[in-house]
Amino acid sequence: MSAPSERVTIKDVAAAAGVSKGAVSLAFNHKPGVSDATRERIFAAARQLGWAPNSSARSLSRQSVDTIGLAICRPARLLGLEPFYMEFISGIESVLAERDCSLLLRLVGSLEEEISLQERWWRERQIGGSILVDFHQEDPRIAPLRGLGLPAVAVGHPTLTGGFPSVWTDDAAAVVEAVRYLAALGHRRIARVGGPTGLGHSAIRAVAFEETMEQLGLEGGPHVETGFSGEEGARATRSLLLSAERPTAILYDNDIMAVAGLGVAAEMGVSVPDDLSLLAWDDSQLCRLTHPTLSAMSHDVHGFGAQVTRVLFEVLAGHEVLSQPVATPSLVPRASTASPRA
Amino acid sequence: MSAPSERVTIKDVAAAAGVSKGAVSLAFNHKPGVSDATRERIFAAARQLGWAPNSSARSLSRQSVDTIGLAICRPARLLGLEPFYMEFISGIESVLAERDCSLLLRLVGSLEEEISLQERWWRERQIGGSILVDFHQEDPRIAPLRGLGLPAVAVGHPTLTGGFPSVWTDDAAAVVEAVRYLAALGHRRIARVGGPTGLGHSAIRAVAFEETMEQLGLEGGPHVETGFSGEEGARATRSLLLSAERPTAILYDNDIMAVAGLGVAAEMGVSVPDDLSLLAWDDSQLCRLTHPTLSAMSHDVHGFGAQVTRVLFEVLAGHEVLSQPVATPSLVPRASTASPRA
Repeated sequence: MSAPSERVTIKDVAAAAGVSKGAVSLAFNHKPGVSDATRERIFAAARQLGWAPNSSARSLSRQSVDTIGLAICRPARLLGLEPFYMEFISGIESVLAERDCSLLLRLVGSLEEEISLQERWWRERQIGGSILVDFHQEDPRIAPLRGLGLPAVAVGHPTLTGGFPSVWTDDAAAVVEAVRYLAALGHRRIARVGGPTGLGHSAIRAVAFEETMEQLGLEGGPHVETGFSGEEGARATRSLLLSAERPTAILYDNDIMAVAGLGVAAEMGVSVPDDLSLLAWDDSQLCRLTHPTLSAMSHDVHGFGAQVTRVLFEVLAGHEVLSQPVATPSLVPRASTASPRA
Repeated sequence: MSAPSERVTIKDVAAAAGVSKGAVSLAFNHKPGVSDATRERIFAAARQLGWAPNSSARSLSRQSVDTIGLAICRPARLLGLEPFYMEFISGIESVLAERDCSLLLRLVGSLEEEISLQERWWRERQIGGSILVDFHQEDPRIAPLRGLGLPAVAVGHPTLTGGFPSVWTDDAAAVVEAVRYLAALGHRRIARVGGPTGLGHSAIRAVAFEETMEQLGLEGGPHVETGFSGEEGARATRSLLLSAERPTAILYDNDIMAVAGLGVAAEMGVSVPDDLSLLAWDDSQLCRLTHPTLSAMSHDVHGFGAQVTRVLFEVLAGHEVLSQPVATPSLVPRASTASPRA
């Protein structure tokens, strides 16, 4: 830590620009009373000295800690379609705003591209640390990013995140609750419409689904793998409803796919919940806007993003951080689930 | 422009680290063949010289051009609720990715906070330019940010954006088309559920709505002002359907509110489109997932974000840029609009 006397103050800026402290304050507060030329001189002096208002302890050498990185490996178009990431980012931003920090956001085409990007962000001091998401099994980012010494928090189960401090949801426990609830209502043919199993959390849910079905003595219901978009959810639902062994209940991996499932059921004249129960995941406001409203495995995605960010600041402060789960998604029954009609 | 000979190359990094060029390449490509200690030395040399792979022409002094700023003045929770911003950001990211650039994203609580933030970003060279959104009438950001010389593109009608090069949608023309279409179907009582009129584009739509209704000889239908969330759209729809002069058609300012309106109609036993026509705005995938599907003023929000970003790069390249509209939102009739039942 530098001694307070070494800090650049408003006085230094005033002296360098040859004006009073009051003039510096006026310039930075967009008040009249300083000419354009003087204001430019003040800004130039501040820039040179690395001084900013309300943050006199901050210097350019520390600037990177003000910025957190987030790279997401999904096609740009898809990102706009799913409420999850926007809610997650809004949670990150809520904590960053408290600390006057910003998010450096980038969509990448591959995990290899993300590795190069994080490395450059870190080496060029554009970021103080990163939030790593969408872990794959045997994720290729782990070794190079750990080797770099990048301060980071991983979003994902510790079995996937290779030693990074991690924050995760207990997806397996939530799947068990979802399947047990549907079985308790009397459903025997339960299907699941899930994300790509290359993603670690989709794989964890798939295994939990199969194991729970088996434990309950139910036939392994059909799994359909998708890419999380509404269109894919609609297609998967249509194919399930056309199959010989039509399920009486479907568990979805997000909520946009469940909304799409509801539309397909209406289009095919299948009554929800009498002939078909639908159970969503994530529970954004969408689930409360449909008719019937959608039962969901409810998950505070905004709070999840906020907690991940708080943990990252712990890491940046040099504290010992343990990996930690956020609250497990919990069942919110609404109008789309009921006992199957005999 | 510096002469090519002044550029830092992989050769300089290799020399500074006391290794071969091949070793530098191995280290940066995460290949085996260099020890951890050597890799660290190579990274340290690259950091010191400001060199990065595949971007040897880039130096630390140019780093700010690699980053574009976007500050959004909405509560964090709300940001996650509306598809618009995520689609807009995905469009921005699609162009940034082509140019190996990143987005610095920040939620702010007030326009005054945004002014300080943009100023700091610019002075500290964290950004090369900004995308300015959500213009208000007599927007307070214009004077200070223009005074700063910040390269920026404004998203909004030129009447609102005070001399910044701007990209906008012709909201007035789209409202005229929407109202004329509903009137041509035979609707006389048309209501509008819009955003806050403090926002410039909401005000433009409100005026266009009233003028068109008047020109068509229709009574000024009720306007309801909301904050764009589904809950507010549901509440507005309920109050319209309970009013003595119940409208037979409702035009919404986004799509999440129209989805909510559809849910309210179903809940109140009002048949869509027989008893009530609903027309959405923005047309994310949501409009195609509901049953009935939602007619919408369709708008390529992803393409809008992409075009804004391309214009900003023109500004950054020092080219003369004219303000320009993107394609006007156009009517996509689906199942939620029809002639009113006698």
